Amino acid sequence: MFANNSNYNVRPILYYDDINPHSRAVLMILNMLDVDIELRAVEMIKGEHLKPAYAKINPALTVPTMVHKDLIITGNAIFSYVCENNDNEKANQLIALKCYKRHCCVLSRLFFESQVLHRIHGHLMTDLVRKTIYQTDVDYHQKKVEHAYDVMEAYLSDSQFMAGSVLTAADISFVACLGALDMMFPIDGDRKRWEKLNDWYRRMRSLSIQKINEFGIEKQRQIVEYFAKFQFKSDIKRFTTGLRESQIPGFPSRPDRCSVSIQTVSGAEPTLDILSIKNNI
Amino acid sequence: MFANNSNYNVRPILYYDDINPHSRAVLMILNMLDVDIELRAVEMIKGEHLKPAYAKINPALTVPTMVHKDLIITGNAIFSYVCENNDNEKANQLIALKCYKRHCCVLSRLFFESQVLHRIHGHLMTDLVRKTIYQTDVDYHQKKVEHAYDVMEAYLSDSQFMAGSVLTAADISFVACLGALDMMFPIDGDRKRWEKLNDWYRRMRSLSIQKINEFGIEKQRQIVEYFAKFQFKSDIKRFTTGLRESQIPGFPSRPDRCSVSIQTVSGAEPTLDILSIKNNI
Repeated sequence: MFANNSNYNVRPILYYDDINPHSRAVLMILNMLDVDIELRAVEMIKGEHLKPAYAKINPALTVPTMVHKDLIITGNAIFSYVCENNDNEKANQLIALKCYKRHCCVLSRLFFESQVLHRIHGHLMTDLVRKTIYQTDVDYHQKKVEHAYDVMEAYLSDSQFMAGSVLTAADISFVACLGALDMMFPIDGDRKRWEKLNDWYRRMRSLSIQKINEFGIEKQRQIVEYFAKFQFKSDIKRFTTGLRESQIPGFPSRPDRCSVSIQTVSGAEPTLDILSIKNNI
Repeated sequence: MFANNSNYNVRPILYYDDINPHSRAVLMILNMLDVDIELRAVEMIKGEHLKPAYAKINPALTVPTMVHKDLIITGNAIFSYVCENNDNEKANQLIALKCYKRHCCVLSRLFFESQVLHRIHGHLMTDLVRKTIYQTDVDYHQKKVEHAYDVMEAYLSDSQFMAGSVLTAADISFVACLGALDMMFPIDGDRKRWEKLNDWYRRMRSLSIQKINEFGIEKQRQIVEYFAKFQFKSDIKRFTTGLRESQIPGFPSRPDRCSVSIQTVSGAEPTLDILSIKNNI
């Protein structure tokens, strides 16, 4: 699309936090496309994204943010940017640059994720962390989440993936968010109502990049359980790692917000180096 | 971008409701590009977007939805679709197809609108309509809205428009939402804090397409005031029309949700025919 990209040979920087679904989705895409990038962690639980240093980069204070030379890209626009910058077969498939219909479909799905799915996720997680499980209107949230599951089931009604017959950025974007919602409201709780969604999620979980997702979801689960004062109903065994016990005691009862500056943790994301995308999707 | 578009000569259909900012923004873009389209009204206040007939078209139940032959496009993806389908100078400017940096910037802004601005707007309006002004936490909403104003002020820190030096779809998208928020929390309430935003809004309001926006905002104001049991503080004179008195008595005290089928009102949007975009932007 943009042949004369002067930024092509400059290493981009990604400000991210893998407790955040958008960050996980971008990390998965970067891994699939084998993009060389500098990772800078922004610990949202410590309020680092609310600090003036981060606001200067991205005044909307959303995470992740990609900085590539003098360009600043935010939100799901990062998918388009990364794919257009890596003009190969895999990138073209992910954002469907060569197929008119699927490109429009992928964009529509990414805007659904931003406008609806991410909002449902954010509202639920914020309520759990701020109000604990006891003050959260779980029925309200369940209704919203189940509506989102119904929408995704409908998207799969006549195709194998969220935006057609092949895996795209829409699938990656959805699975990052769904993985967190599924902890609270497991989609296998109603295999008939969400039959295609269950099948899609099983296929998505078989991808090697899903390890990046699960690594972040596990962190997210620890944080939410700690502040919300409860344990998720979902398949705990799937997430149980040695990390859990050692990390939880580290959280103060009230996080010291905005107390830590943004630090470079380039190269500190081992999952990015050791994973490779399976070919059979 | 997509030269072989077989849908080019088929008239698209837009399901819309001009009480909804996304619909207003799309109507403004369509007017600017002089696109021939069939308009179908979806009365959200009557719950028409929640009916099975609409869910078959767009299971996410969001408004607007564009249907073009066998393509269904939703959310802010409609901007990209319409502009890419009208490959002329004005369309290229709006989505910045010929300029790498501004294209990424426009997309980032459109995702900010979906993820943050539209969410803040939706939450405020839903609370006002459902809870009335007396049960709405106005301070909470004011804080959120003012943050959005701060972000937009920052976007304008070194450029005349939201995504660079010329008007783009980002400006249209933002002004549709801002027009509604400004009723409740006028940006000229603090001309120093939002100096550039006030100047941008003044320029946006001088465009002839703003009449489409104001027509919808007026409807939105009537509905919200009626259900929220109060009058907005903003410049009421600007919005006072003969319509107001005659429409308010028409609303039942509790709207009969899902009782009306989707009806074609093609050609019933007079503002679309009589307006033309000014050249001096």
